[in-house]
Amino acid sequence: MLTIKSRDRNYTVQVCADLPAALQSVSRPERALYLVDRAMIQLYGPALAGIAEQCVVLEAKEEQKSFEQFTPVFLELLQRGLKRDGVLVVIGGGVLQDIGCFIASVLFRGLYWELVPTTLLAQADSCIGSKSSINIGPYKNQIGTFYPPGRVLLTSSILRTLPGDEIRSGLGEVIKLQLLHGPDGFDELMADLAAMNAENQPALLTKWVLRSLAVKQPYIEADEFDRGIRNLLNYGHTFGHAYESATHFGIPHGIAVILGMLTATHLSVRLGLATPEHFADLKKRLAPWHQPYGATLQQADLAAIFTAIRHDKKNTGDAVNCILTAGPGRMEKRRVDFQHELMPSVTAFIQQELAQ
Amino acid sequence: MLTIKSRDRNYTVQVCADLPAALQSVSRPERALYLVDRAMIQLYGPALAGIAEQCVVLEAKEEQKSFEQFTPVFLELLQRGLKRDGVLVVIGGGVLQDIGCFIASVLFRGLYWELVPTTLLAQADSCIGSKSSINIGPYKNQIGTFYPPGRVLLTSSILRTLPGDEIRSGLGEVIKLQLLHGPDGFDELMADLAAMNAENQPALLTKWVLRSLAVKQPYIEADEFDRGIRNLLNYGHTFGHAYESATHFGIPHGIAVILGMLTATHLSVRLGLATPEHFADLKKRLAPWHQPYGATLQQADLAAIFTAIRHDKKNTGDAVNCILTAGPGRMEKRRVDFQHELMPSVTAFIQQELAQ
Repeated sequence: MLTIKSRDRNYTVQVCADLPAALQSVSRPERALYLVDRAMIQLYGPALAGIAEQCVVLEAKEEQKSFEQFTPVFLELLQRGLKRDGVLVVIGGGVLQDIGCFIASVLFRGLYWELVPTTLLAQADSCIGSKSSINIGPYKNQIGTFYPPGRVLLTSSILRTLPGDEIRSGLGEVIKLQLLHGPDGFDELMADLAAMNAENQPALLTKWVLRSLAVKQPYIEADEFDRGIRNLLNYGHTFGHAYESATHFGIPHGIAVILGMLTATHLSVRLGLATPEHFADLKKRLAPWHQPYGATLQQADLAAIFTAIRHDKKNTGDAVNCILTAGPGRMEKRRVDFQHELMPSVTAFIQQELAQ
Repeated sequence: MLTIKSRDRNYTVQVCADLPAALQSVSRPERALYLVDRAMIQLYGPALAGIAEQCVVLEAKEEQKSFEQFTPVFLELLQRGLKRDGVLVVIGGGVLQDIGCFIASVLFRGLYWELVPTTLLAQADSCIGSKSSINIGPYKNQIGTFYPPGRVLLTSSILRTLPGDEIRSGLGEVIKLQLLHGPDGFDELMADLAAMNAENQPALLTKWVLRSLAVKQPYIEADEFDRGIRNLLNYGHTFGHAYESATHFGIPHGIAVILGMLTATHLSVRLGLATPEHFADLKKRLAPWHQPYGATLQQADLAAIFTAIRHDKKNTGDAVNCILTAGPGRMEKRRVDFQHELMPSVTAFIQQELAQ
């Protein structure tokens, strides 16, 4: 069990044998309402039958992450009698976590909540760090809060039945965290991924979920509010978010992050920080993990990508903050000239490097 | 200058000579956008001319305090280029403060903001304590955040031109704070109010604004998140909120609080906590400060009042949390049986006491 330090409350991450075991660990279940991804009901109906009366079911779509879309969720929670001494239990992936965390952070000015993350992305990355992200109009993730759950209940068993793209999307952040950590973890991860098959997948995913959280923990504990060192976790994200946005979320988040990490590395070469060899090596090793979405990105509107990068909340003023890299374990934040450095590099990456 | 201790940041309250002086005290004005009450533009257009280009103007209506209504405000702030190193300056009363505080607390997961409170209610009470309150559907103030401004800039000069009901509404909280503090302050306040005229009003209001903040400060510093002693500041509010809601905000907030304090005192007599003499004295002394809204309350639907009390966010389970009183300076929180104690007392207060 991990214990994560946080301003609001320290919280724990514990591994449960399966979904019923996770549900049995929930605090004060008699006062709980459950915000549940509809896909989970379809996949695990019997395991969830005992809480069916307390479930508010939601489609896990990016479009749900807006005030208009989740106002009915607030209202349903209130109509069903949730009180300030109640518990909101979120069972779902990143979208449900964003919605549930945001609701919990502002309902009654702060409601106790717990989280059962159901995707690899949520288990390996977003379940710790206390962030929620909400969209408004054309602006993605510009609104949010820092409000950790009281407990994170991990159930590796439910990763077995997830569809392939969801695993691959989660691997984007797993790969990012090991690149952030250093060359050894990254090499070991790449070897494990190459050797992964249906039989060893659950054990390997559990291993890398815990290794991912172990890399992330010191960053979020040292800088929960993302004002310094935690920024490095955004490696690949300035570009990744823009790629998601410009393709109308046609590229899964983690895969957009992989493409974004390659873009950031390409830009790092242009700026003399990384070697061309490092970029070439990374491009080759990550290719299996983003195909066929490189082609999706090539069809996106470049102007829309640049507009999205400019609107990214981490950009103040004219130049753009980028997390660049000199290689595994060597990331740094720099302001990059938008027109003379960033635009040519992104254009060349998409039009030339991805085409090869 | 007061300095208020808070989790997020300590913040200051300073008195400025007039509105231009307050505006000159704003931090980083070149990066500021101003959220301004439309009434302020009408009253103080010339003083605000210098920031006209940076103003987002809003009608100060209770209905604005909902996701649907303020989504356009978020969008306008983003479209006009507000960045995470910007400043949001709120110039308005309680409604603008609620909207501005909520927006600042979630935009970019927390934006620096400053506050120029323009009503007596906002200056004497809500400007400190870091709360925002948002409505959703039929539920009033169920959503919100704790997020103080970096600075509160008080300008007593603008209270001179406010309409009468706005002063009286603000006096509701001023009276409440002195009742909370003890008999001496309350007697002195009542004497000052009786002697108030057009000439001495600015000086007297400034005096009681500062006296009010001085009473409130230790409560919010000891219990910023309203889990204990700060609850006592809700004296009059469980009933007051219900009266506002059941009359569709036909009773100004502070006046509803006065009627709510009388109700709580009436209930305290029924429960053997206060003497009938204290209630009779208070009823007589407060009458000038709530008329003619007692009549408005008598016309309200009693069922709607009881529904609103049940829905109040401070009520968990079947009984109702009330701040009761044994007299000035002697408030306490108790759970009160809804059906056998609260309902008969509220009914008798409205139907019999207010009619006399």
